[in-house]
Amino acid sequence: VTADYVRGLEVVLASGEVIRTGRRTIKGVAGFDLTGLFVGSEGTLGVVTEVTARLVPAPAPPQTMVATFSSMERAVQGVLALRAEPHLPSTLELMDRALLEVLQSYADFGYPDDCAALLLIQSDRQGGSSEDVRRFAALLAEAGADEIVVADSRQEADALMEGRRAGQVAVTARGPHLMEDMCVPVPRLGDMIKAGYAVADRLGLEVTMSGHAGDGNLHPTVFIPEGPDGPGRAREAVGELMAAALALGGTITGEHGVGTFKRDWLPTELGQSEMDRQRQLRSFFDPHGILNPGRVH
Amino acid sequence: VTADYVRGLEVVLASGEVIRTGRRTIKGVAGFDLTGLFVGSEGTLGVVTEVTARLVPAPAPPQTMVATFSSMERAVQGVLALRAEPHLPSTLELMDRALLEVLQSYADFGYPDDCAALLLIQSDRQGGSSEDVRRFAALLAEAGADEIVVADSRQEADALMEGRRAGQVAVTARGPHLMEDMCVPVPRLGDMIKAGYAVADRLGLEVTMSGHAGDGNLHPTVFIPEGPDGPGRAREAVGELMAAALALGGTITGEHGVGTFKRDWLPTELGQSEMDRQRQLRSFFDPHGILNPGRVH
Repeated sequence: VTADYVRGLEVVLASGEVIRTGRRTIKGVAGFDLTGLFVGSEGTLGVVTEVTARLVPAPAPPQTMVATFSSMERAVQGVLALRAEPHLPSTLELMDRALLEVLQSYADFGYPDDCAALLLIQSDRQGGSSEDVRRFAALLAEAGADEIVVADSRQEADALMEGRRAGQVAVTARGPHLMEDMCVPVPRLGDMIKAGYAVADRLGLEVTMSGHAGDGNLHPTVFIPEGPDGPGRAREAVGELMAAALALGGTITGEHGVGTFKRDWLPTELGQSEMDRQRQLRSFFDPHGILNPGRVH
Repeated sequence: VTADYVRGLEVVLASGEVIRTGRRTIKGVAGFDLTGLFVGSEGTLGVVTEVTARLVPAPAPPQTMVATFSSMERAVQGVLALRAEPHLPSTLELMDRALLEVLQSYADFGYPDDCAALLLIQSDRQGGSSEDVRRFAALLAEAGADEIVVADSRQEADALMEGRRAGQVAVTARGPHLMEDMCVPVPRLGDMIKAGYAVADRLGLEVTMSGHAGDGNLHPTVFIPEGPDGPGRAREAVGELMAAALALGGTITGEHGVGTFKRDWLPTELGQSEMDRQRQLRSFFDPHGILNPGRVH
């Protein structure tokens, strides 16, 4: 995750004082390291004005493959099988039928019109990519994949990945929506997806359950139906999705944060005691409440 | 560094409340993450009772090599050359003449008796180790290494590494000492070593300048001379070593912490304003000062 690459920060505190967190050296353990506290705090503890990041060598050009499945259960089986590998895929994306239809009606990305779910997989392991692809293909076949296509060229790989990149644009073109950001433990991925479809059925909404399956991080998308009660029903669906994620041991936000929209759900995730402590800690850094008021807590 | 692998903690706070920090999922950004704040806090913010660690696949068996140099300057050149590689050695240890003598008089590890400095190097990169060793050898030869020996077998590699593992025992057998833990930016490694020898000369002390050179993390060891002023002179030397590390943009402790011994030097590293903030933050978590009193700040 991004935080692992943040070595230090320059932060302007509420008092106006400019501080540096983190280490100037590769190793260092003198005093408290505030870096991790500021990362992801959404500007509520200070204003980050500089980030020192750890660099890693550019990965090898990835091998790219696609697997299609006639049921979501099988696709999830495929995800779990790949997650059990010692060398994980560098990309492991899941698209469900609903998202594939949204994508294909935006532009023809060449995705099949008859599969229930599709996995986009990459390995960028130096010296091991081709070997990984062969092993991944065998595991996906065992999980029940109907078709497994490995890109022969960079161009073919780019074409396969293009739909994923177009997701946000295609969804926006389809209409008003709420795009969510739940993350559950990977073994509960199937349960999360089922919960999403159950909510969609019960409330009569169009919902896609897709995302970064390898991390258990889904971006369920709820399209806002027409009519005056549309936004309310979509919001109700999102609330149920968040409740489902929490019940499965997950979080209401895997990577995008709490902001204003999820404030009301945060106490359910953190618990009242932790909410109180975090608010007090926030007051410690910002006694007059001038930093990003109304966000997070 | 170790903190990168800590995903979450169970901590008993000063109030007796038991909290969990970190995430239950691979990704998660709901609220402040206190994990990094507790890691390395030496028990001053709470008592850690459980650690959730990220696991990585066991590395490939390493390739091991040794390079000897007729001057410390050349050995440092070798370190800098290897640090500029895209794929870094997994081990890059420096031993100076003084440490080699301490080791060889403890037991015969087969280290040469005529080199000024020695580098112990490993690469554990899957699929790339042999290639790395060839490239490392070329770079070390260019830096002026006299002899470069690559282990042919696991047994030979173990033999080469044995002296490094015996360092603490051999130093303790030699006599009373203060073993230090400075870390400087790698490009300042040569300056730090020179500063150490200058301190040793001026105060007439036996000092070794060796350690995890690839991280810029040295464990300078000052032997405490006999006589009533011995401990004071050794402590003075350590103070000068810490001042040198700070002047070079480094830290007084790369990996072992502040504890009681380095308390007096911490304000020089952090500055008074950061010391005050850290003490207040400590009071926030431990208002009655019951957690590890007398340590760190």
